[in-house]
Amino acid sequence: MVEHIGPLERLIEELGKLPGVGQKSAARLAFFLLKHPEGEALALAEAIIDLKRNVRYCSTCFNVTTDDPCHICSDPKRDRSVVCIVEQPQDLIAIERTGEYRGLYHVLMGALSPIGGIGPEDLTVDRLVERIIQSGGEIREAIIATNPTSDGEATATYVAGELGESGVTVSRIAQGLPVGSNLEHADNVTMARSIHTRRKLI
Amino acid sequence: MVEHIGPLERLIEELGKLPGVGQKSAARLAFFLLKHPEGEALALAEAIIDLKRNVRYCSTCFNVTTDDPCHICSDPKRDRSVVCIVEQPQDLIAIERTGEYRGLYHVLMGALSPIGGIGPEDLTVDRLVERIIQSGGEIREAIIATNPTSDGEATATYVAGELGESGVTVSRIAQGLPVGSNLEHADNVTMARSIHTRRKLI
Repeated sequence: MVEHIGPLERLIEELGKLPGVGQKSAARLAFFLLKHPEGEALALAEAIIDLKRNVRYCSTCFNVTTDDPCHICSDPKRDRSVVCIVEQPQDLIAIERTGEYRGLYHVLMGALSPIGGIGPEDLTVDRLVERIIQSGGEIREAIIATNPTSDGEATATYVAGELGESGVTVSRIAQGLPVGSNLEHADNVTMARSIHTRRKLI
Repeated sequence: MVEHIGPLERLIEELGKLPGVGQKSAARLAFFLLKHPEGEALALAEAIIDLKRNVRYCSTCFNVTTDDPCHICSDPKRDRSVVCIVEQPQDLIAIERTGEYRGLYHVLMGALSPIGGIGPEDLTVDRLVERIIQSGGEIREAIIATNPTSDGEATATYVAGELGESGVTVSRIAQGLPVGSNLEHADNVTMARSIHTRRKLI
């Protein structure tokens, strides 16, 4: 039936390519857009076009940006002695949201994943090493903030290895119980990690 | 952070208006589109534009269509003596998929819903009555195929009432146990309905 309505069929197909959107959801979204006021549906189409035309990755840190270098790399008030290494621009956004970090960033554009077929050549580690060398000693610390997952850990180990000869201090974000959480409900791995990497107080 | 990247923020906002897409999903989809090859992301935008420009509702039966009247209303091989009344174009597609029905359709464009604020004036019942009268006796049966939900039942009752004086036979699709299902796992309401509307065999 939908085969008789080319544009509808095409939209369902395109929506079905989005992550987490199956054929049924795609059809539901397409019919929603069909019923939706024309202006609002076109606003979505235009937002996609605008995104693809005007948003790029910063050539220094690979953050998402409309200007190159991005507003963080070009901000004179940021601490240029420390660079925080994350997997994705989304992680950078999560860190910025805390308002606690005032240094620079470096986005790897992924994590090593043997299953996903992602190797070191797919990440921006080479550019990171180059960037640290080119800073001429200005960058003194690299905080590895990849995810506390197996892929993230493997990536952290790899990045630390690559930075071994650069002379910078390399650190890894802490893993343990989430603030405000309950020991009773902690998973075993987090609990064990939390004990293993305990901090001396006195 | 995203506030610094207007087009990204705008797309997340637009995606967040879609049904079943929350703020986190919207951000995930936006970052996916950002990473996606330009051609494919633009294909989605163009599919939305194409849909809004070229797909409309059939002025006779309110099916979705690129041509008016739609390919069902204008098909000389369809049985013009019977019209199947459904809530949404999606329901029509579900019936067409069975390949069992060769008559015409009428899409109500919704169901009565006191909670949703949808009354008779929001549906296409008036057009249905008009259509039956204008057929000059050609339409002889109306099959009410609204959903077996409380809103769908209320709508069926209302439509049947409106068709009372039109002289056509009015029927309602059967409700009972799904084919291939198991009595053991049937819900009580379906089981009761199935017994209540039993068919005489001999």
